[in-house]
Amino acid sequence: MLLDLLKLQGAQVYNDLDKGKFPQFSVPSRSVSNIVYDKKLRQYILGNAASLRSSRNMSQLRSFTQLMWLAFFANRLVHEKKSSTLRDVYYSSQAFEVEFEDQPESDNIIVDLEAVLARPREDFHIFPEERSSIFGDLTIEYTVPGYEGKRTNLSNHPDGYLIGPSLSSAELVDTSAELVIAIEKGGLFTRFIEEKVDKKFKAIIVDTAGQAPRATRYLLKRLHEQMKLPVVILTDGDVYGEHIAMVIKSGSANAAHLRELTVPDAKWMGVWASDIDKFKLPTIPMTESDIKRIYDLQKDPRYQEGIWKTELEIFLKIKRKAELEAFSKYGLTNITDKYLPQKLELSKSL
Amino acid sequence: MLLDLLKLQGAQVYNDLDKGKFPQFSVPSRSVSNIVYDKKLRQYILGNAASLRSSRNMSQLRSFTQLMWLAFFANRLVHEKKSSTLRDVYYSSQAFEVEFEDQPESDNIIVDLEAVLARPREDFHIFPEERSSIFGDLTIEYTVPGYEGKRTNLSNHPDGYLIGPSLSSAELVDTSAELVIAIEKGGLFTRFIEEKVDKKFKAIIVDTAGQAPRATRYLLKRLHEQMKLPVVILTDGDVYGEHIAMVIKSGSANAAHLRELTVPDAKWMGVWASDIDKFKLPTIPMTESDIKRIYDLQKDPRYQEGIWKTELEIFLKIKRKAELEAFSKYGLTNITDKYLPQKLELSKSL
Repeated sequence: MLLDLLKLQGAQVYNDLDKGKFPQFSVPSRSVSNIVYDKKLRQYILGNAASLRSSRNMSQLRSFTQLMWLAFFANRLVHEKKSSTLRDVYYSSQAFEVEFEDQPESDNIIVDLEAVLARPREDFHIFPEERSSIFGDLTIEYTVPGYEGKRTNLSNHPDGYLIGPSLSSAELVDTSAELVIAIEKGGLFTRFIEEKVDKKFKAIIVDTAGQAPRATRYLLKRLHEQMKLPVVILTDGDVYGEHIAMVIKSGSANAAHLRELTVPDAKWMGVWASDIDKFKLPTIPMTESDIKRIYDLQKDPRYQEGIWKTELEIFLKIKRKAELEAFSKYGLTNITDKYLPQKLELSKSL
Repeated sequence: MLLDLLKLQGAQVYNDLDKGKFPQFSVPSRSVSNIVYDKKLRQYILGNAASLRSSRNMSQLRSFTQLMWLAFFANRLVHEKKSSTLRDVYYSSQAFEVEFEDQPESDNIIVDLEAVLARPREDFHIFPEERSSIFGDLTIEYTVPGYEGKRTNLSNHPDGYLIGPSLSSAELVDTSAELVIAIEKGGLFTRFIEEKVDKKFKAIIVDTAGQAPRATRYLLKRLHEQMKLPVVILTDGDVYGEHIAMVIKSGSANAAHLRELTVPDAKWMGVWASDIDKFKLPTIPMTESDIKRIYDLQKDPRYQEGIWKTELEIFLKIKRKAELEAFSKYGLTNITDKYLPQKLELSKSL
């Protein structure tokens, strides 16, 4: 539990002081040379290198103090059950006369604390501004103050439910769903609800709103592990879409210090580069930056095999991309009536 | 009702054909010279200039056909109770071999149809991707298929409810709230919920997520007119925040063809430029573009009096700005414990 982890860090500081030693933190190094891809865990992890933040060293004293204060502040947030944002933390530091040059400096210390505790900042109640959403037959039970024990079914509001602090901390109680469909775009999320994809395919639908926020990735992981639901991902048919799926599946290099945010068994089912021709989708030419992004990803160890590799190659060959909305060329419900059933069927054999 | 308006336009086309005339549409002109500020309505409106889209004129035939098709497509969306997006419409046109060069061209025709019908596109089921959210004791009754007659209370999910097509078309049934607080940022929206601002101040809380989407402005108008609730707006203390409030109050020049989106009695209560000194808020220096924006707004007829004028002047004088999160310097609940009560009290006398 997070409070125990914080207590452990605090006890270590007291121990050092009792022994007449300068207290210090050991922070796992997040430098590129210490980030490695772990094939067994199927995600990036940190190696063994660590950097010290010692109160003995003048050049480390500043970051030691900042980290110490942040641990104190995180403890308070969790105890008082208050949520906060990266920006809030920056301003809150001023109340304690702890100096941060600017918000990037405090953001960086927050990631340091994540690395020290090996827990995402959402666990110590620091949430991002962006929110994605969810819809489907899933009953949850809240744990936030004022709502303890209350239950809601996430099919009651047909515009979907925001994935904020309350939903993130809720217990997942019950569902009749048999899979989760994560989709990149709000417009399609709404279409899927209108077309009753939740009922027709016994699905919980998640709008990732582009790159999935971490609270959403954490929820996907819980749906997969606790509710035993397979996770299928649909994105635009471009290199950014492919990578949105990859991040849900195996995280990102800059969150290599965390293990709570990946769904290694999640399947990217489209829009594949090969679907563009197969489904005769209207396309848009790639930009220079799309093409550069493909070359970048081709160096990533995760793109060395399977569809991850072949679809990148096809994108590079055709130099065109297609959006999820492109299916509307064949009618607004073409994507849910034709494309989705084919892809869900296919996902069972992959 | 929207379908009647569409029918009227269609009948006119048939009439013209019966009389052997070339059918045409008259589209209110949205050129700058035809946009005037109406002091009585307290919003921008269009003057009497109109432009023709005639099937007789080769240079107008393309836009005539596009508009005709869009009216047909809108009719179908409304009949079939399907929602759609700007991008969907662009791709859908390809199913009918109606040519649009690119999405901006179809977006523009959508605004033409808004102007012809004097109804926002949300009425013909074209919704934006972005969603903001709402929380508080408000019972709504859905009208969307599958949910007709079902009711939900918008205080049941403490992360807030998305304002999408279902909520936009729902009946507002009942509330114990006595005011609406619209706030610019998701982080503060969550804070307000956690601090029970809804209960303490009998408020419905709306997250505008920056510039309020039109569905959100329309909902604010309905809360004001149908539920008789005053609307109070809180934004960051900068020129963009001031204008977010102004747009909720009196719309924008580029929606001058619509009347459904303004709450002329809404009150911007902060963060005012004068609050920065009064509440000793930490500030950020303005950028060049902030300052340019102030000079731009000083030419706007709506910024010629009252706080709109004086606060702009103070911003220009201090050349600094403060975010809503700046109150965290005095503790995370300073904004809800101290600032908000003062401002709500003050709002009664303005």
